[in-house]
Amino acid sequence: MSAAESPPHRITVLAGGIGGARFLRGLLIAAGPDSEITVVGNTGDDIWIHGLRVCPDLDTVMYTLGGGISEARGWGREDETFTVKDELARYDLEPSWFGLGDRDIATHLVRTQMLNGGYPLSAVTEALCARWQPGVRLLPMSDDRAETHVVIDDPDGARDTTGDPLRRAIHFQEWWVRYRAEPCAHDFVLVGAPDARPGPGVIDAIEQADVVLLPPSNPVVSIGTILQVPGIVDALRRTSAPVVGISPIIGGRPVRGMADACLAAIGVAVDAGAVARHYGARRALIPAGAPADGLLDGWLVDTSDADAISAVQALGIACHAVPLWMSDLDTTVTIAQAALDVADDVRQGS
Amino acid sequence: MSAAESPPHRITVLAGGIGGARFLRGLLIAAGPDSEITVVGNTGDDIWIHGLRVCPDLDTVMYTLGGGISEARGWGREDETFTVKDELARYDLEPSWFGLGDRDIATHLVRTQMLNGGYPLSAVTEALCARWQPGVRLLPMSDDRAETHVVIDDPDGARDTTGDPLRRAIHFQEWWVRYRAEPCAHDFVLVGAPDARPGPGVIDAIEQADVVLLPPSNPVVSIGTILQVPGIVDALRRTSAPVVGISPIIGGRPVRGMADACLAAIGVAVDAGAVARHYGARRALIPAGAPADGLLDGWLVDTSDADAISAVQALGIACHAVPLWMSDLDTTVTIAQAALDVADDVRQGS
Repeated sequence: MSAAESPPHRITVLAGGIGGARFLRGLLIAAGPDSEITVVGNTGDDIWIHGLRVCPDLDTVMYTLGGGISEARGWGREDETFTVKDELARYDLEPSWFGLGDRDIATHLVRTQMLNGGYPLSAVTEALCARWQPGVRLLPMSDDRAETHVVIDDPDGARDTTGDPLRRAIHFQEWWVRYRAEPCAHDFVLVGAPDARPGPGVIDAIEQADVVLLPPSNPVVSIGTILQVPGIVDALRRTSAPVVGISPIIGGRPVRGMADACLAAIGVAVDAGAVARHYGARRALIPAGAPADGLLDGWLVDTSDADAISAVQALGIACHAVPLWMSDLDTTVTIAQAALDVADDVRQGS
Repeated sequence: MSAAESPPHRITVLAGGIGGARFLRGLLIAAGPDSEITVVGNTGDDIWIHGLRVCPDLDTVMYTLGGGISEARGWGREDETFTVKDELARYDLEPSWFGLGDRDIATHLVRTQMLNGGYPLSAVTEALCARWQPGVRLLPMSDDRAETHVVIDDPDGARDTTGDPLRRAIHFQEWWVRYRAEPCAHDFVLVGAPDARPGPGVIDAIEQADVVLLPPSNPVVSIGTILQVPGIVDALRRTSAPVVGISPIIGGRPVRGMADACLAAIGVAVDAGAVARHYGARRALIPAGAPADGLLDGWLVDTSDADAISAVQALGIACHAVPLWMSDLDTTVTIAQAALDVADDVRQGS
């Protein structure tokens, strides 16, 4: 590899939970020790449970990169116990559908105490990371409270006076965890979004990056949520860095989780090419006359989705196919390297 | 036993932690199922730890009578684990000297969430007792925050400009748990006492009782704290019920805990008779010309302290000697029965 092909130095990643965290493991190796990786984490999944502030996606990134994650579950702590949860159940405390582990609760106690003491979430996250040393700078997308709610038909079957199902907006976690994303999602609403400001360092991290990556996180409720924080889309469109995404859909199915249920709600097909079209082309390769209101300069699809490449390229997005199943660390490193290579290609072509 | 000697119906007990809770176990049996026992619990030991509201004495009474106490320690939960505590230590979270168990934390999470939601401590305590069914009505001495602080010489040896040790007031729990009551206590101050109001039902429970008992709890930082809530002493002096105490000192040593360190601070000898003198005579047996500014109608001392009886009686306080070591439940029942018998004697003598 020549000096011109050396890895970019400043890498900024917009990340959700499990998929983003696993991708970051590979990226840390692919990018090498001279890179500075900043992660803008989704906080739209955050929730108050039993008076504790829980930030599932930030914690998944922190635990995964810090060596504390449950590898089997992909979230929560390894060797976890649930004594507190069992005791809370003895008090009939609701909600009972969100299970906090004992080790995990310590994290939430530290966070809650700091938040109640007046520290912003970004400072709290930095303090927690002082223990976990994730090897990346982990920034909440916003210090302001903005939580994803899901519009569904009333789960108990209530109907309005005309006989139509009554619609209710429930917290994302209730839809995802309690109802396993089964009730049809009519819409996702990030409550608080209009007043949410990007977290400290977020806009700079995007604007001053050498590369911006969108890992195979949920395009609706993870990355889509981050994009709803006012100012972040503008920064992504303004940055001189190539923006490269990795498809979270392989062969018409989500890599992980229930992204299909989320894409349906916003009218996007569960298809690697359709997700690229949803994000849209940014500018680097934009063909003359095509609209330039999107975010992507590059897009990686799985080798099984290679037939989508030409359509994505026609949008003005560089597109390559590589194996995208993050089945082990080596594969994940290869995926991350491929994303950095696409970014190099885009930079040299622009 | 004749009808005239049948046990009193409404019994009100001012209680601290372990000593009070164990006494109550015996009292529940001695008093029988037709009695209504109200416990006014000390909340001067309460503390915020890691953002959780901890009420050690209320919980000790609740767990002891509800079957959840650690019999070995006398406080905290049976079969307790300390996963959260160990994790908090990994975050270097202070204070590290106060160890909350996992089961116990569930109680504090319920309490904290209810308090932060606007419920008074009395309502929270009632809700917690719905699970534990302690068999008594457990009332916090006050819903207002009033916490015992201890004036000591600076533990790091700091001195003022004249070379005298610098005095500091630390929370009772820090003195008791962290420093094991070793630094000489110059004074105890119930911070917040002037503004604390008796908890709902407390004054009525005292005024409308058939018997008021002071179990062998710490006379300074347990019962003495309850007595500092404005209005409680007046109610004790106004009630038509006999007020009978059980000595927490046997043979010049505390039954349990470090009451000797507390008594020294307020200039009271560690002696069963001296504690009776500290509480003072109420009125029932008051000799002509003696001051009537105390609280006791009756006092139980251990058989080994029988030589104190005449001096206590000379104060105008009925006094009997029975074995006071609560070594098992049967003995404790006997002690409680003896206290009720003294109350009967006082009532019939007055």
